[in-house]
Amino acid sequence: MQLQLTSPLDMHLHLRQGEMLKNITPLSSKTFSGALIMPNTVPPITTKEMVKNYRDEIVEAAKDGTFTPYMTLFFSNSYNYEFLQSIKDDILAIKLYPAGITTNSEGGVNSFDIETLKETLEAMSQLQIPLCIHGESDGFVMDREAEFIPIYKQLATAFPKLKIVMEHITTAASAKAVLEHDNLYATITLHHLYITLDDVAGGMLQPHLFCKPIAKRPEDRAALIDLALNANPKVMFGSDSAPHPKSAKEAPGCAAGVFTAPIALQALAQLFEQHGKLENLQAFVSDNAQKIYNITPPKKSILLEKKEFIVPDSYGEIVPFLAGKSLQWSIQ
Amino acid sequence: MQLQLTSPLDMHLHLRQGEMLKNITPLSSKTFSGALIMPNTVPPITTKEMVKNYRDEIVEAAKDGTFTPYMTLFFSNSYNYEFLQSIKDDILAIKLYPAGITTNSEGGVNSFDIETLKETLEAMSQLQIPLCIHGESDGFVMDREAEFIPIYKQLATAFPKLKIVMEHITTAASAKAVLEHDNLYATITLHHLYITLDDVAGGMLQPHLFCKPIAKRPEDRAALIDLALNANPKVMFGSDSAPHPKSAKEAPGCAAGVFTAPIALQALAQLFEQHGKLENLQAFVSDNAQKIYNITPPKKSILLEKKEFIVPDSYGEIVPFLAGKSLQWSIQ
Repeated sequence: MQLQLTSPLDMHLHLRQGEMLKNITPLSSKTFSGALIMPNTVPPITTKEMVKNYRDEIVEAAKDGTFTPYMTLFFSNSYNYEFLQSIKDDILAIKLYPAGITTNSEGGVNSFDIETLKETLEAMSQLQIPLCIHGESDGFVMDREAEFIPIYKQLATAFPKLKIVMEHITTAASAKAVLEHDNLYATITLHHLYITLDDVAGGMLQPHLFCKPIAKRPEDRAALIDLALNANPKVMFGSDSAPHPKSAKEAPGCAAGVFTAPIALQALAQLFEQHGKLENLQAFVSDNAQKIYNITPPKKSILLEKKEFIVPDSYGEIVPFLAGKSLQWSIQ
Repeated sequence: MQLQLTSPLDMHLHLRQGEMLKNITPLSSKTFSGALIMPNTVPPITTKEMVKNYRDEIVEAAKDGTFTPYMTLFFSNSYNYEFLQSIKDDILAIKLYPAGITTNSEGGVNSFDIETLKETLEAMSQLQIPLCIHGESDGFVMDREAEFIPIYKQLATAFPKLKIVMEHITTAASAKAVLEHDNLYATITLHHLYITLDDVAGGMLQPHLFCKPIAKRPEDRAALIDLALNANPKVMFGSDSAPHPKSAKEAPGCAAGVFTAPIALQALAQLFEQHGKLENLQAFVSDNAQKIYNITPPKKSILLEKKEFIVPDSYGEIVPFLAGKSLQWSIQ
C-alpha cells in the first residue's frame, strides 16, 4: 500500500540556530514542502534583517530548493502599522509568547490587556498578518492551557478580522474553543495525538516525552484525534518539533521539547490508517494550512509506503520521538 | 529556638537490600526511634524466616540500639489464620500492593474481590494485624488514587475491626475518605506536603521529584497540609523515603521514589513552623502512630534547633529531596 502526499507542511517548527540548525533543517526539508519557523531564538527574531538572515541560514541548510521556510516574528506590542507594513512580505505570521512560558520566551508578553495590545493587533488585522499564540497561563501545569482560553476568546472577539492560531493545542477544552470563533484556528502536534501524561510520568519518567504544553488526559487526546483525523478545516499539522541535545534531556532540569520532524509523516500515516482515516491525512498535513494561511507551497510529492520503518535511536545528538520503535509506514 | 521531639517514627520506609541497606539505614536510625519497613524487596518478604533475617540485617546496619524496625509482610491472599498467628509477633502490619503498581510490586494483588481476600483479611482482623495499602488503580496517573477510594471504603466496611492504613495519600479525596470510616488511617509523606505536579513537570522536568503516587494538584497538597499540620489523629508521618542511585534517577525510564529520610524532621519542622503549627509536630511524627498501631517505641530524644542546614547534594550515590537547598532547622 502506498500513500502520495502533496506538499506536506509543518506549521509549527523549531529549527534553532548554528550547528543545531545545520543538522536538523535537512530532516524537515527532505519531507516537507514548507514549515512555519518559530522565532524564539537567542535573541528572538524581531527585525526585518533578522528575519532575512534567519531565512537565508535555513535555506542554505535545507539544501533543497523545494522547501520554503515561512518566517515569523517574535511578537511585541511595540510593533506599529508602519513597521508591520515594511515587514509584511517577509513573514507569514507573528508568534506571541506569554513571558517565560517555554524555551527562550523570556521576552514575551506580560499582559493580555486589550488596550496594551490594540495598536499592534489592529495593524496586524488590517495587514492580514495572522497571530500565532502559545496559549498557556502561569497556573498549575495541567490547567494552563484551559485557563488561557478566555484570552483567546477575548482576542478573537476584539479583533474579528485577525486570524488567530492556537498553537499546539492539547486539551478537549481548546478543541471545543477553536470551533466557537470564525477567526480561531489551531495546530496539533504529532506527539499530542500519540501520548498522554501517562506516557510521560505514569510508568517510569520519560524525559524524551516531556514537552510544553505537557501531554494531558486520555479524553483530551481523544478530542485532538477527533479534530485532526476528521480533517476539520480549523486545524492543521504543526509538529512543534523541538530538538534538545540528549545531554540536556537526560538530566535533572530536563528541557521541554519532543523531536518529531523526521518521523512525523510516517507516524501520522500509521495513526490515520489505524483509525481508518488515511484519506484525511492530505488535508491535515497540507490543504488545511494552505487555506488558513492562504499560501501555495512549492509542489513536492512524498510517497509513503506501508513498509516497516524502525525509528533511529538518535539523529546526531538528538533522540527522536518513538526512538527505536517500529512504525508501519516509511518514506520511499 | 529549639524543638525537642520524642521518639520520632517513620511509618513508611524503604530500606532496600544489601549495600544500599547498609548505607541508608543509619540515616534513618540516627534520627528516628523506629520505622515501619516496607517488604517490597527482591524477592518480597513473605515468610517468618525472611522477616527475621531482614530485621537482623537492618538492626545490624542501624548501629543504634534505640532504633526499632517494625516489620511488615508482603500481602498474599494465601496467608491463613494459622500462618498469621505464627508470624503475628514478628510483624507490625501487612502491606498490600496492587500488582505492578510500583517498584518491586509484581507479586501484588490482581483482584480486590472481597471473597478472594476474605480468609486472610478476617484472620488479620481477628489477630489485630493492620493492613497497609498502596491504593492506586491502573488508570490515568492523576486519577489512580481517587479511583482506588471505593476499594478502601468497601474493605473498611466489610472488615470493620481491621485497621486499614491508606499509605502515602496525595489527594483531597483521600484526605476526606480517611475521616469517613473509623478503621481507616493514613500516612502522609514529607514530599507530598511540599510539592505538586508543578514542581515535577511544571518548569523543567525534575526526576528527583518523581514518585508514586505522583504529586498532585495544589488543592490536594492543601488538604494534606490541613490534616497533617493540625495533627489529625487519623494521620501519621510515613516518609516513603525510597532511594534509587543517581544513575537510575537521571536517565530515561527514571525510577519512582524520593529520598527524604535524613532531612525529613528538619524539613517538617520548617513547614510546621511556617504554618504556626510547630506544637503539632510531635503528634504527627510520633504520638498519632503510637496510638494507631498501639506501639511504644524506644525512648529517643531528638533536639531540633533553628539554625541553617544546607541539604547535602548527595548521600553517597543518592540525591536527597531538597538537595542543595537551605533549611532553617537542623538536628543538634
